[in-house]
Amino acid sequence: MQNEVLRGNAVIGQSGGPTVVINQSLVGVVETLRGRHGIDKVLGCLHGVRGIKNDQYVELQDIPQDRLERIAQTPSAALGSTRDKPNPDYCREIFQSLEKRNVRYFFYIGGNDSSDTCRIVNDLAKQRGYELRAFHVPKTIDNDLVHNDHTPGFASAAKFVAHAFIGDNLDNRALPGIKINVVMGRHAGFLTAASVLARHQQDDGPHLIYVPEVVFDIDKFIADVDHIYTRLGRCLIAVSEGIHDASGNPIIQMLAKQLSQELQTDAHGNVQLSGTGALGDFLAERLKKALKPKHSELRVRADTFGYLQRCFAGCTSDVDAREARMVGRKAAEAALTSGKTDGSIAIQRVSNDPYQAGYQVIELAAVAGKTRTLDRKYIIDDNTISDAYKEYLSPLVGKLPVVESIRISRV
Amino acid sequence: MQNEVLRGNAVIGQSGGPTVVINQSLVGVVETLRGRHGIDKVLGCLHGVRGIKNDQYVELQDIPQDRLERIAQTPSAALGSTRDKPNPDYCREIFQSLEKRNVRYFFYIGGNDSSDTCRIVNDLAKQRGYELRAFHVPKTIDNDLVHNDHTPGFASAAKFVAHAFIGDNLDNRALPGIKINVVMGRHAGFLTAASVLARHQQDDGPHLIYVPEVVFDIDKFIADVDHIYTRLGRCLIAVSEGIHDASGNPIIQMLAKQLSQELQTDAHGNVQLSGTGALGDFLAERLKKALKPKHSELRVRADTFGYLQRCFAGCTSDVDAREARMVGRKAAEAALTSGKTDGSIAIQRVSNDPYQAGYQVIELAAVAGKTRTLDRKYIIDDNTISDAYKEYLSPLVGKLPVVESIRISRV
Repeated sequence: MQNEVLRGNAVIGQSGGPTVVINQSLVGVVETLRGRHGIDKVLGCLHGVRGIKNDQYVELQDIPQDRLERIAQTPSAALGSTRDKPNPDYCREIFQSLEKRNVRYFFYIGGNDSSDTCRIVNDLAKQRGYELRAFHVPKTIDNDLVHNDHTPGFASAAKFVAHAFIGDNLDNRALPGIKINVVMGRHAGFLTAASVLARHQQDDGPHLIYVPEVVFDIDKFIADVDHIYTRLGRCLIAVSEGIHDASGNPIIQMLAKQLSQELQTDAHGNVQLSGTGALGDFLAERLKKALKPKHSELRVRADTFGYLQRCFAGCTSDVDAREARMVGRKAAEAALTSGKTDGSIAIQRVSNDPYQAGYQVIELAAVAGKTRTLDRKYIIDDNTISDAYKEYLSPLVGKLPVVESIRISRV
Repeated sequence: MQNEVLRGNAVIGQSGGPTVVINQSLVGVVETLRGRHGIDKVLGCLHGVRGIKNDQYVELQDIPQDRLERIAQTPSAALGSTRDKPNPDYCREIFQSLEKRNVRYFFYIGGNDSSDTCRIVNDLAKQRGYELRAFHVPKTIDNDLVHNDHTPGFASAAKFVAHAFIGDNLDNRALPGIKINVVMGRHAGFLTAASVLARHQQDDGPHLIYVPEVVFDIDKFIADVDHIYTRLGRCLIAVSEGIHDASGNPIIQMLAKQLSQELQTDAHGNVQLSGTGALGDFLAERLKKALKPKHSELRVRADTFGYLQRCFAGCTSDVDAREARMVGRKAAEAALTSGKTDGSIAIQRVSNDPYQAGYQVIELAAVAGKTRTLDRKYIIDDNTISDAYKEYLSPLVGKLPVVESIRISRV
């Protein structure tokens, strides 16, 4: 087996929510595969598995390197993405397409749903006796893949969140009030916790941070905010979109019921949390009602960072870009030379100071469909994040903007 | 008068919504005033006129230049800001404070409400025979000051909006659907129009741009979106928060009525448009209801950029930072040497290629309380923005991130 090179075409797909570095991974795979023994064409499938099903491919092996470099730096998925999750019928169509194209190498860049898709495709190949190399290339701003120190896309999204909170903390200091910022994260609070990077001085916000790892209690929330506002005259709050009650029901569903609104769901049955300001507005309304009687001049505002977090141009972490490129290269190299038929690339932290990463090929089944959450050791008092998390995150995000204050010595 | 130097203390205040460059203007005034003949102390009033009323000042003349440089680069108002609009009683208190402190130079950094405050303070000084130099230093992301080519703070906010739309256009291309982005701008569409900078290729978004200069008609809006979505399979939309119906009522008020919600107003009687996702969510709901019967797989999402537009750290335009510094310096210089007792600094465009700005001292009354809106010549078909606007805006915003696509030649 090891001596005989598997010969055929390769297909690369991009899946799930785009990031600013997902094209780095695409380019990493392309530049490693092309011209290598056993590889004929390097194809991109348009809009992930949907492009395979519909037999929609583009050739990538002849794109000049300088254009590949520019593609790598471009946010979002250059091949298009999808949220389709293949069922058995869908998979049969995928195989007709793969066989027709003599595809022997399949790379799927995405999160935990996408790694599961990769696993299913791989299992079907085995059942049918179709020789295939199937590798998952990690990508998710949620940072929720198990067996990974962190995932490509996350650090740049965290950098966006940190920059946003640095500015908004100063904004809130200048015009004091209560400000809620809703951050992406359905099950994992890594991205919301990144707001802690905005804290430099003692009284800097975010003063409260709510992640989905902790059950959200609206009365506790109101009391927390009242406490901070009474003390500082202002309160900056970070909230994960995925906060939920003790039964696991998203807080946004409670809102939807109260407003008799329907919520959209995706193909995976997940409720729409992003692309709406409803959660923030709801929390702001509750705070106004509860605290206005006590604080008459109270201003409460809510912003929902939304899709900007994953694709904002010009706020990419250098470490993130480099690592996203590397996981693509490592996946291609593993498919060509490791002797393994399938797997997923995982990023490990080799050292923290100076920061250094390592890459490992792990089992598809080890990562597929599983969700990692924020370690409880980083969560303090159920409503904020520790400095230890800053140490974890800082090397990934890199240098943050200058912040200087006028040290107030009143005349 | 010209030969006799007015001797006393100077006060600088910051007012209205903060920007990422408002501290540049503060530093521009401080570094020009300190050590000059006639100037004793250079004081900052905390939270604008509120700090004068409450006799809350800090000394600024002894801050080392390197710290001033770092303050200049820090987003938001280092002295704190306010939305207070002084009434006669308030003004009496202001004068007690100014007289007590022997303040003879007053600089107020802000937008059109702030320039009006500056005018009122100046008029009162004249009435009372109190010799005062009162200068307004322009600042507003809305870009709506008359007699100005543009205003400090606007270019950086426009850069943020452009970066956001560049990313979101690519995001929307990867996962097609209808996406609404709500941009700040109560009466003027300059910032919303900045989204046009994201358009490079023929089919790039934003495909539709709605500004407050055009009466918003919900049925026309739905028809516009349907037309684009039917043609491209996606539609990216920029909407000003201040869009209104033919009677001038904000569209968000129609929403508030329908949801029986109360809207907050500020001290100037303006309805709360920012710090809520309500307008975007409302428009998304209307589109879903209207277009789902025709397009069954339709996805509609809305993001509201919110306060990030004015204070996001690390997305400052170089031209904006430089000009914000210059208007501070020019105001201080005018107060010291022009022979004028009051005025406002206005930015003029001397040449476009290479870009060059000039600065003029204009009458306070010429700018105070007035609102400039986007020239109709930039608005095409009531729902998009011309390339001529790109020519106006590009030199202010500077270089934008790399965008490269895989030119699709299907296999």
